[in-house]
Amino acid sequence: MIIQTQLIVPTRGRGSYEITDRIQRAVRDSGIRTGICHVFIRHTSASLMLCENADPAVRRDLETFMARQVPDGDPMWSHTAEGADDMPAHVRSVLTQSDLNLPIADGCCALGTWQGVYVWEHRHAGHERNVILTISGKR
Amino acid sequence: MIIQTQLIVPTRGRGSYEITDRIQRAVRDSGIRTGICHVFIRHTSASLMLCENADPAVRRDLETFMARQVPDGDPMWSHTAEGADDMPAHVRSVLTQSDLNLPIADGCCALGTWQGVYVWEHRHAGHERNVILTISGKR
Amino acid sequence: MIIQTQLIVPTRGRGSYEITDRIQRAVRDSGIRTGICHVFIRHTSASLMLCENADPAVRRDLETFMARQVPDGDPMWSHTAEGADDMPAHVRSVLTQSDLNLPIADGCCALGTWQGVYVWEHRHAGHERNVILTISGKR
Repeated sequence: MIIQTQLIVPTRGRGSYEITDRIQRAVRDSGIRTGICHVFIRHTSASLMLCENADPAVRRDLETFMARQVPDGDPMWSHTAEGADDMPAHVRSVLTQSDLNLPIADGCCALGTWQGVYVWEHRHAGHERNVILTISGKR
Repeated sequence: MIIQTQLIVPTRGRGSYEITDRIQRAVRDSGIRTGICHVFIRHTSASLMLCENADPAVRRDLETFMARQVPDGDPMWSHTAEGADDMPAHVRSVLTQSDLNLPIADGCCALGTWQGVYVWEHRHAGHERNVILTISGKR
Repeated sequence: MIIQTQLIVPTRGRGSYEITDRIQRAVRDSGIRTGICHVFIRHTSASLMLCENADPAVRRDLETFMARQVPDGDPMWSHTAEGADDMPAHVRSVLTQSDLNLPIADGCCALGTWQGVYVWEHRHAGHERNVILTISGKR
């Protein structure tokens, strides 16, 4: 069987926002015991990330790293219609994930102990981000 | 149900080639209304990218970025059998995607307004790139 | 139908470890002829990579590249509880893949001639890495 649902994820600007619990709840509600939960973000300036979920410094360091590798306002960017963070947001999205698949075992996503799922907002302004979950498998 | 088909994507050297319409047509032809379309590229010197599809400058800037991060002919490369772009093509592939999953809703891929699917050729010479679509779900 | 199984992949520290044959065997054992093999690694300091499988220099060059882009012991890292390679391991994981989907055709993964699947250990110490395979499709 297959079930599709949508998450609206409001962001308050650049940074990562955990959605693990919302995904686990949707999987539990589906009644599927063995299968796959597909997570898809319908944007090109925000992305998905599976990341260490215990120490917030990990996600801060990831921001620092990305800011150095893909600098806002770099003179190499020609696509700047929406500002200094416009093109960096697209590059950061391309370097990370727009979709993830999580295995479902015993009725929930079989993540490792330290794995959390995050929406990574790459723009400085807040947005409402649209995520589609497609949950398939057997009960 | 599950349907598999193949796309041959001819490239004219380094750059990105949109395949969104061909994917949407294959999904429509499958008759599947709710499910997943899996896209897989059978190469390690070309990759897949979900990218902003409105302003071609975005994809030009992505080329500029990759050329700076993963330079052709860098002395650090030891794998140079096929030339200065051989190893950079493998690195660019590893940093982007070899497979993508797109949610199918109402009989087509539920992409965001600005999302297009591209084959990203990383070699300077043109190639015929082989892409497998596996479309699964319910009618 | 859908079948789930687990691979334990012992590593001897930083480097890539091929698991293509183990995946192909699991797919063959499943009896599924057309479908998808999902590969998921339950860690945030090791990842998955589809890479050229003929010349070992390719994977050595990838290590050299990553060591330059994401340096061990860089003063920008604040998350250093487990040492100089702790945060770089998380960044390398985020820049590569935690899950891969491989198309199954004629009863095996339809990889390209030069494509191999690797667990990429990013820590200097060896670990036992846990990989879940979820194989779905029709016989």
